[in-house]
Amino acid sequence: MSTARFITFEGIDGSGKSTQARRFAEALGGRGADVILTREPGGSSGAEEIRQLVLTGDPDRWSAETEILLFTAARRDHLEKTIEPALKAGKTVISDRFADSTRVYQGATRGDLRAMVDRLHTLMIGREPDLTFIIDMDPATALERGLARNSGEDRFEDFGLAFQETLRHGFLALAKAHPNRCVLIDGNRPVDQIASEIAAYA
Amino acid sequence: MSTARFITFEGIDGSGKSTQARRFAEALGGRGADVILTREPGGSSGAEEIRQLVLTGDPDRWSAETEILLFTAARRDHLEKTIEPALKAGKTVISDRFADSTRVYQGATRGDLRAMVDRLHTLMIGREPDLTFIIDMDPATALERGLARNSGEDRFEDFGLAFQETLRHGFLALAKAHPNRCVLIDGNRPVDQIASEIAAYA
Repeated sequence: MSTARFITFEGIDGSGKSTQARRFAEALGGRGADVILTREPGGSSGAEEIRQLVLTGDPDRWSAETEILLFTAARRDHLEKTIEPALKAGKTVISDRFADSTRVYQGATRGDLRAMVDRLHTLMIGREPDLTFIIDMDPATALERGLARNSGEDRFEDFGLAFQETLRHGFLALAKAHPNRCVLIDGNRPVDQIASEIAAYA
Repeated sequence: MSTARFITFEGIDGSGKSTQARRFAEALGGRGADVILTREPGGSSGAEEIRQLVLTGDPDRWSAETEILLFTAARRDHLEKTIEPALKAGKTVISDRFADSTRVYQGATRGDLRAMVDRLHTLMIGREPDLTFIIDMDPATALERGLARNSGEDRFEDFGLAFQETLRHGFLALAKAHPNRCVLIDGNRPVDQIASEIAAYA
């Protein structure tokens, strides 16, 4: 098993990616790997402060461009304070969401900003995951799950089923565009079965 | 007198630029111009929230890169919510600091990031002032003034005289690099005399 890998889990809200990220971290840990499990937005104390700033209060007070800058600031902090030090120490880093989420959510809400998102990522972040699991899921089921556990933060759920469908297609397109690092996982199955399939990549 | 101009005041802390920005706004207003006076960091409610985030708490918790992203997010909000709408309405906008401050402060603390600062500005801000007054000032006198009114926010004052000298030279270099929009003003004179010189540009 290789060490110091940066692995991300992506997918629509309610796809089960957080559960699978945790299960994969446990599976790797069980095999003796030194693993840290982190998430975005957030994942470091500075990034959590920025997350709070963006996600509390009226979300419409930020334009798409300002929000992209704030999330990029949070990602930069997460990268510097959590991800890079762990990788340098030889640990495997598993992140529940990373830059692909920004690409897909931004593509679905303001597709005209996609080039800006990509240039900003290249300029200020640079890092891509070594491996990305994209958990594909029926949007109607995912939406139900998401609404059931409503955290008050997943405000994209407000846009309803049509929006979830758009996001799903965004993630599928991403998987196709980056076949070297992306693995598409069918999330419409029992949790254990999905976890077993992913564990094969440990 | 032309309308809808974007005019900035720049210089080291304690140079008197805030006083001169106010005096110039008053002079323009006295001639019947529709003027708004704003400042950075801040200048809009979202930008003020970001200013608070950056400037309260331990300032060292942010890397230079993350701080640049946060200030750029604040500047984008300031531009969208305050500067652009006022210019569109035919008003003259006077800002106490703008992107030149980032260029000069970043150049003095982390000169290696200057190319990043410029590329980020081009990508996410774009706008340059029509006219910039750079108030040049003896750094020792400026530092004394700055310390006397210590706002608790001008943390660069902590770096002392050598740092103020570096900043001063940064602003002088900027004035030289952008002669079309920058006017260098000798700030080592009585306030009224300086204000009269600047008022000639109204």
